[in-house]
Amino acid sequence: MRVIFTQELKMVADNLDRMSNGVHLAIVKAGQALLNTDIDAAQEVIDGDDQLDKLENSILEHCVKLLAQQSPVATDLRVVVATIRLASTFERMGDLARHIAETTRRAYPNSAIIDQTREIFEKMQEFDATVSAELTSILNTRDTELAEKIIVNDDVLDNLHKQTFDIATSDSWEGSRQQIIDLVLLGRYYERFGDHAVSVARMLIYMVSGFDPTKQPQLEKDQEVSNK
Amino acid sequence: MRVIFTQELKMVADNLDRMSNGVHLAIVKAGQALLNTDIDAAQEVIDGDDQLDKLENSILEHCVKLLAQQSPVATDLRVVVATIRLASTFERMGDLARHIAETTRRAYPNSAIIDQTREIFEKMQEFDATVSAELTSILNTRDTELAEKIIVNDDVLDNLHKQTFDIATSDSWEGSRQQIIDLVLLGRYYERFGDHAVSVARMLIYMVSGFDPTKQPQLEKDQEVSNK
Repeated sequence: MRVIFTQELKMVADNLDRMSNGVHLAIVKAGQALLNTDIDAAQEVIDGDDQLDKLENSILEHCVKLLAQQSPVATDLRVVVATIRLASTFERMGDLARHIAETTRRAYPNSAIIDQTREIFEKMQEFDATVSAELTSILNTRDTELAEKIIVNDDVLDNLHKQTFDIATSDSWEGSRQQIIDLVLLGRYYERFGDHAVSVARMLIYMVSGFDPTKQPQLEKDQEVSNK
Repeated sequence: MRVIFTQELKMVADNLDRMSNGVHLAIVKAGQALLNTDIDAAQEVIDGDDQLDKLENSILEHCVKLLAQQSPVATDLRVVVATIRLASTFERMGDLARHIAETTRRAYPNSAIIDQTREIFEKMQEFDATVSAELTSILNTRDTELAEKIIVNDDVLDNLHKQTFDIATSDSWEGSRQQIIDLVLLGRYYERFGDHAVSVARMLIYMVSGFDPTKQPQLEKDQEVSNK
C-alpha cells in the first residue's frame, strides 16, 4: 500500500513540476513578447495556457483519488493538500502570463509599453522570471531558505509597481491614455504574479516543514501596492 | 464515527457560510465607500478583511483535520476538497473588496470615480453585490440552477468592464491621468470579483452534483476582458 501511494504521489509531483516549469516558460515568453513586440511569442503564450489548465485539473483529480483510496495522514496528507492549492495558484500565474501576452497582442503592431517605462517593466519581468525559476527549483531541492528569500523580497516588485504610477502621473509622461491603461494592467499582472509566487513559497515551506509562515509575525502578510 | 464527521463537517460549513456572507457584506460596504466617498465605510472594509483571512485559515486547518481523522470518501470527500478551494476563493474576493476600499481611501476626500463612469461602476457594484448574495444563498439551498445562471451571466460584467476603457480613451473623457489609473484598477477589481464568483458557482455545482462544469462544452471557460 505504501509503495503504491509513494508511486502515485510521485506522479502528481511530476505534474506539479511540469506546471511550475510551464509557468516559468510562460512568463519568460510573455516578457519576450512584451519587450520585443513579438506577436508570435504572444500567441504561443496564449495558446499554451490551455495546457496549464489541463494540468491543474489532472492534478486535482489525482489528489482526490489519492485521498479517497489511500487516506494519507501526517506529512503525506499535508503534501496532497498543499499540492491542490499549489496547482490552483500556478494556474492563476499562467493566466497572468497570458494576460501580459494578450495586452501585447492588442497593442500590436505598436508596443504596449512606452520608452519611459521600459526599464521598469524589464525589471519586473526579470523579477517574475527569476522567482518562477526559483519555485521550480525549490519544488525539487526543498530549499526553504530560498523560499524565505522569495517571501522577504516581495517589496522589490511592489516598489517597481509603484514607480509605474509615479511616471504615469508625472509632468513628464509622454504616452496616450490607452498607454496608461496598458501600464496599469501590465503592472498589475506582474505584481500579482509576484504575489502568487510569494504564496507558493509559503505553501512550499508549509509542505516541507509543516510550519505555516503566515503565522510568523516578522513575515508580513503579502500586501499589494494597488495604488493605495 | 459518522455522526462525529457530520457534526464536524457542519462546523466547517458554518464557517464557510460566515465567509461567504462576510464577502457579501465587504463588497456591499466597499461599494458604499466608493460610490458615496464614505471614508468610514472604506476603513471598515479594510479593517474587516483580517477576519476573512482568519476564517480561511481556520477552515483549511479544520478540513485537514477532517481528512486525517475521518478519511472521508465519495460525497463527503468532495465536499471537504471543494470547501478548501472555496475558502481560498472567498479570501481572494475579500481582498478585492478591500482593494476597492483602499482605492477609495487613497483618492479621499475626492471620489475615486468621475461622473462619466459613475453609472457603469454602479452597475458593476450591483452585479457583484447580487452575485455574492446568490452564492451565500446557494451554499444553503444547493440551488444549482442559480449557480448555472451565475456562470452564464458572466459576460454582463465583462461588457461593463470594457465600457470603462471605451470611455477613458474617448474624446469626451474629462478625467485626469490618476483617474484613469483608478478606473483601470477599480474595473479590474470588480471584474475579478465577478470571475471568482463564477468559479465559486462552478465549485458549488461540483460539490453538490459531482459534475465538473468546466468540462461542459457550452459553458465557456471564464474569460476576462483584460483589455484584450
